[in-house]
Amino acid sequence: MFYFGGDYNPEQWPEEVWAEDVALMRLAGVTAVTVGVFSWAMLEPTEGRYEFGWLDRVLDMLHDGGIRVVLATPTASPPPWFSLAHPDALPVTADGVRLTHGSRDTYCASAPAYRDACRRMARELAGRYGGHPALTMWHVHNEYGTRCHCDHVAEAFRRWLRARYGSLDRLNDAWTTAFWSQWYSDWAQVLPPRATQYLPNPGQVLDFRRFVSDELLAAYIEQRDVLRELSPGVPVTTNFALGGWVPIDHARWAREVDVVAIDHYPSATGPAAAEQIALAADLARSWARAAGVGWLLMEQAAGMVYTPGRILAKAPGELVRHSLGHVARGSQGAMFFQWRAPRGGAERFHSALVPHAGPASRVFQEACTLGTLLRDLSTVDGDVVADVAILWDAQAGWAGEGPGVPSEDVRYLDAIEAAHRVLYRAGFTVDFTAPDADLSGYRLVVVPSLYLVSDAAAARIGGYVASGGHLVVSFFSGIADVDGRVRLGGHPGAFRDILGVRVDEFRPLPPDEPVKLSTGDSGQVWSEHVQLIGATAVASYTGGVLDGSPAVTRHEFGAGVAWYLSTRLDDPAYGRLLADAARAAGAVPPQPGIEAVRRGSWLFLLNHSDEPVTVPAAGVDLVTGRPVDGTVEVPAGGVAVVRPPGFV
Amino acid sequence: MFYFGGDYNPEQWPEEVWAEDVALMRLAGVTAVTVGVFSWAMLEPTEGRYEFGWLDRVLDMLHDGGIRVVLATPTASPPPWFSLAHPDALPVTADGVRLTHGSRDTYCASAPAYRDACRRMARELAGRYGGHPALTMWHVHNEYGTRCHCDHVAEAFRRWLRARYGSLDRLNDAWTTAFWSQWYSDWAQVLPPRATQYLPNPGQVLDFRRFVSDELLAAYIEQRDVLRELSPGVPVTTNFALGGWVPIDHARWAREVDVVAIDHYPSATGPAAAEQIALAADLARSWARAAGVGWLLMEQAAGMVYTPGRILAKAPGELVRHSLGHVARGSQGAMFFQWRAPRGGAERFHSALVPHAGPASRVFQEACTLGTLLRDLSTVDGDVVADVAILWDAQAGWAGEGPGVPSEDVRYLDAIEAAHRVLYRAGFTVDFTAPDADLSGYRLVVVPSLYLVSDAAAARIGGYVASGGHLVVSFFSGIADVDGRVRLGGHPGAFRDILGVRVDEFRPLPPDEPVKLSTGDSGQVWSEHVQLIGATAVASYTGGVLDGSPAVTRHEFGAGVAWYLSTRLDDPAYGRLLADAARAAGAVPPQPGIEAVRRGSWLFLLNHSDEPVTVPAAGVDLVTGRPVDGTVEVPAGGVAVVRPPGFV
Amino acid sequence: MFYFGGDYNPEQWPEEVWAEDVALMRLAGVTAVTVGVFSWAMLEPTEGRYEFGWLDRVLDMLHDGGIRVVLATPTASPPPWFSLAHPDALPVTADGVRLTHGSRDTYCASAPAYRDACRRMARELAGRYGGHPALTMWHVHNEYGTRCHCDHVAEAFRRWLRARYGSLDRLNDAWTTAFWSQWYSDWAQVLPPRATQYLPNPGQVLDFRRFVSDELLAAYIEQRDVLRELSPGVPVTTNFALGGWVPIDHARWAREVDVVAIDHYPSATGPAAAEQIALAADLARSWARAAGVGWLLMEQAAGMVYTPGRILAKAPGELVRHSLGHVARGSQGAMFFQWRAPRGGAERFHSALVPHAGPASRVFQEACTLGTLLRDLSTVDGDVVADVAILWDAQAGWAGEGPGVPSEDVRYLDAIEAAHRVLYRAGFTVDFTAPDADLSGYRLVVVPSLYLVSDAAAARIGGYVASGGHLVVSFFSGIADVDGRVRLGGHPGAFRDILGVRVDEFRPLPPDEPVKLSTGDSGQVWSEHVQLIGATAVASYTGGVLDGSPAVTRHEFGAGVAWYLSTRLDDPAYGRLLADAARAAGAVPPQPGIEAVRRGSWLFLLNHSDEPVTVPAAGVDLVTGRPVDGTVEVPAGGVAVVRPPGFV
Repeated sequence: MFYFGGDYNPEQWPEEVWAEDVALMRLAGVTAVTVGVFSWAMLEPTEGRYEFGWLDRVLDMLHDGGIRVVLATPTASPPPWFSLAHPDALPVTADGVRLTHGSRDTYCASAPAYRDACRRMARELAGRYGGHPALTMWHVHNEYGTRCHCDHVAEAFRRWLRARYGSLDRLNDAWTTAFWSQWYSDWAQVLPPRATQYLPNPGQVLDFRRFVSDELLAAYIEQRDVLRELSPGVPVTTNFALGGWVPIDHARWAREVDVVAIDHYPSATGPAAAEQIALAADLARSWARAAGVGWLLMEQAAGMVYTPGRILAKAPGELVRHSLGHVARGSQGAMFFQWRAPRGGAERFHSALVPHAGPASRVFQEACTLGTLLRDLSTVDGDVVADVAILWDAQAGWAGEGPGVPSEDVRYLDAIEAAHRVLYRAGFTVDFTAPDADLSGYRLVVVPSLYLVSDAAAARIGGYVASGGHLVVSFFSGIADVDGRVRLGGHPGAFRDILGVRVDEFRPLPPDEPVKLSTGDSGQVWSEHVQLIGATAVASYTGGVLDGSPAVTRHEFGAGVAWYLSTRLDDPAYGRLLADAARAAGAVPPQPGIEAVRRGSWLFLLNHSDEPVTVPAAGVDLVTGRPVDGTVEVPAGGVAVVRPPGFV
Repeated sequence: MFYFGGDYNPEQWPEEVWAEDVALMRLAGVTAVTVGVFSWAMLEPTEGRYEFGWLDRVLDMLHDGGIRVVLATPTASPPPWFSLAHPDALPVTADGVRLTHGSRDTYCASAPAYRDACRRMARELAGRYGGHPALTMWHVHNEYGTRCHCDHVAEAFRRWLRARYGSLDRLNDAWTTAFWSQWYSDWAQVLPPRATQYLPNPGQVLDFRRFVSDELLAAYIEQRDVLRELSPGVPVTTNFALGGWVPIDHARWAREVDVVAIDHYPSATGPAAAEQIALAADLARSWARAAGVGWLLMEQAAGMVYTPGRILAKAPGELVRHSLGHVARGSQGAMFFQWRAPRGGAERFHSALVPHAGPASRVFQEACTLGTLLRDLSTVDGDVVADVAILWDAQAGWAGEGPGVPSEDVRYLDAIEAAHRVLYRAGFTVDFTAPDADLSGYRLVVVPSLYLVSDAAAARIGGYVASGGHLVVSFFSGIADVDGRVRLGGHPGAFRDILGVRVDEFRPLPPDEPVKLSTGDSGQVWSEHVQLIGATAVASYTGGVLDGSPAVTRHEFGAGVAWYLSTRLDDPAYGRLLADAARAAGAVPPQPGIEAVRRGSWLFLLNHSDEPVTVPAAGVDLVTGRPVDGTVEVPAGGVAVVRPPGFV
Repeated sequence: MFYFGGDYNPEQWPEEVWAEDVALMRLAGVTAVTVGVFSWAMLEPTEGRYEFGWLDRVLDMLHDGGIRVVLATPTASPPPWFSLAHPDALPVTADGVRLTHGSRDTYCASAPAYRDACRRMARELAGRYGGHPALTMWHVHNEYGTRCHCDHVAEAFRRWLRARYGSLDRLNDAWTTAFWSQWYSDWAQVLPPRATQYLPNPGQVLDFRRFVSDELLAAYIEQRDVLRELSPGVPVTTNFALGGWVPIDHARWAREVDVVAIDHYPSATGPAAAEQIALAADLARSWARAAGVGWLLMEQAAGMVYTPGRILAKAPGELVRHSLGHVARGSQGAMFFQWRAPRGGAERFHSALVPHAGPASRVFQEACTLGTLLRDLSTVDGDVVADVAILWDAQAGWAGEGPGVPSEDVRYLDAIEAAHRVLYRAGFTVDFTAPDADLSGYRLVVVPSLYLVSDAAAARIGGYVASGGHLVVSFFSGIADVDGRVRLGGHPGAFRDILGVRVDEFRPLPPDEPVKLSTGDSGQVWSEHVQLIGATAVASYTGGVLDGSPAVTRHEFGAGVAWYLSTRLDDPAYGRLLADAARAAGAVPPQPGIEAVRRGSWLFLLNHSDEPVTVPAAGVDLVTGRPVDGTVEVPAGGVAVVRPPGFV
């Protein structure tokens, strides 16, 4: 049975509304709700005084209604009394401003008082509800991702650095502190990157980002271990927030959860939303698979998309298509933030399954449609198989966007998204893989702008190609070692031999000044002076300083092939290049013209267009319940899920 | 006799200049000047030591010259000694930065030391000058509008909240503090909105804006009461600064002054300046009328307009036309900031009646022209009558722009300005009215984007329509109750029944992506899914998700008619809609093609165009002194003021 | 022998790299390197413990390799231990944020602990290396230019103000503190311009900028005097950073150095870079000449140009042309930042003579070319002679951009650059001159937007014209006296009589709203109402409010001619006007169509175009070694340096 439901905050409403909630949940086919995410103040209204009566009633009521409960620890938002009792546990910005309660997430994750309070709360909840029959999963905290620069953090950062580097000499070397007289003679001198006069040290910035991820992970693990101890057998997770601003290495975190849970909010409407959903789901699946666990879409918006400055509404049908985009890629369900729209608070205009207008609304009707559909899909099972992979590494992305890089237009997420987008549009199902992963199962591996790579990972990638693998590497890859120090002797340092090219000079491009290629395509953002040391040129620059020198190259390396792309192609040209490379590598795309994903034996077909699309298939369409014998027509804006003929 | 003159700062000049000042004032026809606005440091050069000798000489000299004095309390700018003696009375930003003297307005209005010093100063001035024969009005402070977030303010804010809500439970409910675990268990936890992690609580933000207005008003009232006590019979006012950044509910303040005084600086040149002047004057007149007092343009610029980044010069003739724009709408005169341009200080390039170039200048010549004209208009009297009103409520505007609203493009002042502008261009004279006002005198009431409205006010508006009134409501109105909490059951909550429509979903529009209407017009900024529950569609959306659903509706409600506008029309279409609604309501516009305003029996005609305009009129043109018999031709850029034939 | 080399930071590398460094330096023809700029932490790793062994070895090794050493004091970047030992010596922003180490330049130049530490370090270095045979020059600090607002600074600022003004009355007068009640009754009340409520006092802002320049200069002089005492005969300098953000009056500083040294980084590529280089070199030469010393390009980038957000690469050939652009204008060489690109640190992607790719790179090859060329030019000597000068005064620029000025579009550097650029394009070699300089040697003096000017300087300029000089003054000149107070009686106050015009009103122009002139040209940024009081109109405004009134005027004053330009012409029109004025004054431009500069008897020809250019010349081209008999053809992108025929 799929998870279907959303965050449920009964504490915002008088109890008379609760009964209506359960009735509407049953009407919509809701199977599970997340309770307690922001309930700290209601559970512990003053320090050490707990009030669980209301939560007892909520859980019992849900259980009676047949609704499962994902129970959250409420530690993402300490109550106001906590700030007054522990001012040293409030977060401090890089400028030294100590923030105040009045929003959410206002705590320092390194403050002992905060960590103690979290452990106590987890222990109380696990002790009381660990055996509740409604309980189906623990949900620790919410969207970890805060930063602080206070003295508690400084101390924790130094501990983390001691563990990483062992000696101060090693740290001085890794950070190149001989530059600008930053050499440390005592550990006490090492600080988080606080406000300073000019550009900060990139090694310090990179390690601080690594530290923040690890420090928050340690805070999570503390709670998880309490829950596992007192509530054995109940899976524990925390919901990952996605987005460039989130200082978390999710691949690393995935190893510590029982289910990878993601929150996903597209930043655009229409086709771009579907592309972003495919990316998020492919990432989540890949993290989960590498960790040997399943995954779940824990939050999405029912009816809207946040864009800077305004909240846009989804089109009719998107609630269903977006949800199935995740389920097709392996999600154990489709959860929403939130069940019922609140009357007040900063997110009162965030959408909900039950909007302000109530159940007589388009959104609630679509929620009912989705509930029915997910019930009809309850037999769906199995995993998604891809023979094309994109290599993703959060830490490489952080390093490549550090202070002093050659171009602010080289953004790691842009590079990842572009590679994924053009493969998605060409119809390929794509996995993500990691620098330390086994690549041998893939026909083609794409490495977008992997600025930082360890020697070991570079060797592993080289071995993959030598053994017959196909590889596409794009510019600004292999530049730095694991400390972020530039590799000498010519770029792209770590990949020079694999790619058969050597670069002595970057030539970043100004905005809106593309460079022409011999293929008729054009490049943006980046160019460079590429010398061939084994590779052959597939396309060269035309005109300008680089006239005639290679732009795209191909190198036969051992039994495999390695392509290098020294500029950013526009989407159509990039898509042709990757599709050509994939086909040459033996990868076969599924059905073009529609979003088609095979999960286990089930074929998901999502038609995001305004025209019906006919697709070859056989079995039963679980959406219409009709047999499919040769082809299925998916209506404009509609979906089909074809169960194979032999299924019993 | 009209007030004509400006701020006069003799303390910036050696005494030999003073005699020239009075001679030039007499030459220009100046009748009154405002003295002492920023004189604290010269009046109390060290704490408790007063130096009034220079001011004695100034007032006597002005009195000898026949110039009346508006005497200011100088409390808008404490001297440097005050900062050093009372560092806790310096203002603190939301980020915790304590500001320093060196500009103006650097004080915390809730600091006891500041309030004490202000009362003492008012007492000293009233005691010394309360009976001076030159004194015509008290001018408390200057452009109240500062904010502070310090602990004094926190305490005062809590006092204000206790008074408003009585109990903490009521506050928790009004602010929906169950959201994000913001529930307060002790009053001491409640703070001003200081820097926090993410979006602040919208209830807290709204109440803090209300508090700031009330707290500053309390500071004003303290001084006013001292002045009234020691100087009975002399009117007391303070000059209102206009503009979206000013945290003041002027309608509320108007009840505490003896004359509504406004400072008005258009933000653009040309026709837009005239439109802004009409808006400001109509607001001032409406506030004053509701409070039962008169009003006065206390400050305007003689020769320039501030635009972001540069100071533009007014065109020849604008000094006179701008001044008459205010007088036509009821101002008791036309005052300027400032009499003489200073040689230094941050506003040395602010214009003045006597510019740096001296009296041999265009601006001084126009000042003389205006002085003569105002003398010739001295018989003008009476009020302005309008049968169209726009409902204005500062607090609704604050609430609708709080954190987390659906679109930052919905700005309250934009909505107010658009409604006023299109009515002005159509030739209507417009009043402003308030949620708690009697609407029965108006043919048509326009309610632009009134996000927040109390139940009582909504009922009053419904009663107005039911009794035969005509109403136009635009989108994002009636959404929230008086605490800013969203009304349930479908938008526009408070006005659903009056308008006969129900909205279950907002669809804000991205910038530059208009939506088409069946009328051929197009909408910007906003759209929504409107269902008819009694109304009929006057225009509907064409194309896109909302294709065919209502965009503009009309509802016969009781004996009246209520229109609803669910998108922002461009100016011409909006103007046609409001003019049609006004005509249907029986309102008749005065003369089109020129700015024509009737004050009492006098007809003011301001020709902002480059061509002469001929207007039907009869009587005497006080500008030319010539009889008007049937028509008067107003020259390009010129003015006429027609006294009715029967006047004696 | 020219200086050729760059900043050399061996402390960033293991000693085995050092030998390769010297070998490559010799290969490239390097003659000198700058050592120790950021070595404080390596020289004094803990307070008071010095480690000079490594530097001994570096200097000996360089000396053995025949490379001269410019030895720096490392005081631009105190080590982390310094911050912990002296937290009061960390800088504080205007907002009160105390910055932390982790970048560079993190100190308060007024902190006693910092000044002491700097003097001690200078003494140690001078004592140890003052007689080293490799030492050729002392290089104090690096790019002075930091600001601080702490209490040490407040005290130093008050000392400086006491020295400038003598009495508080005089300061109150100069700053017009009667405005906005800013009058000071005690010196202790006077502070640096810290965060305040609204616009700060322009007098305070101007004097603080003057103070910052003088305070940093005092810090420099302290070190210089130690070095001179202990290392007599060795020239001492500090490298001037150029750019609008640098709070330094370089003309004043030039009097305190033995060689004017500049760092120059163009902000654009292509022809604009060459224009910026000519400007920088002309400024440096003019400062040096006024001080009676030589000058040197101390830093430039080998291969790249910083633009906001991205680092662009220079084109092949630019390394040589840019270097010769400086040498042609008098530089004693061409130095670079830096010798070898570092592997880490914030500037790891700053270019270097030895890039990350190593000597097998375009940049290193061009460095070798330049080394050879500079050796071949070793006989070049003599000065550059110009008969056109632009008046430049940093303090006038600061005053004219202070708070409250009429237009943010009037930027002093823009005005200076525009005048220089159009004269450069017309082929003129240009000097810069100062308000206190003798102008009698010039045919034409251009005075761009000199907002502030003393009475004495204005009289000197008037005397120059009266004695037959030709003068062009552009708008917003002569407005203020030396305290920044506006001159009364009509603009441009100080120059009214010289120019024969009187302005009673500025009319700044909005962006993209040009005003037309009778010549067919158009004006941007500024216009004003000009009355003729002796001058004749050369061009007038057409259309709009100023229709028919003078825009450009010419005034015969004594034996000379003074032009006034009341708007900003576009470059071609401005160039025609200045070229006409120069020709009328008797100035003759050298060769057009190519950058041609005569230094002593040598003719430098730099061809920045894509086509060869043929120029009349005679002698020997030192670049090709070929005789020149009548004409020399300079290849596209190439250079020629013609030695006169008679040279032995």
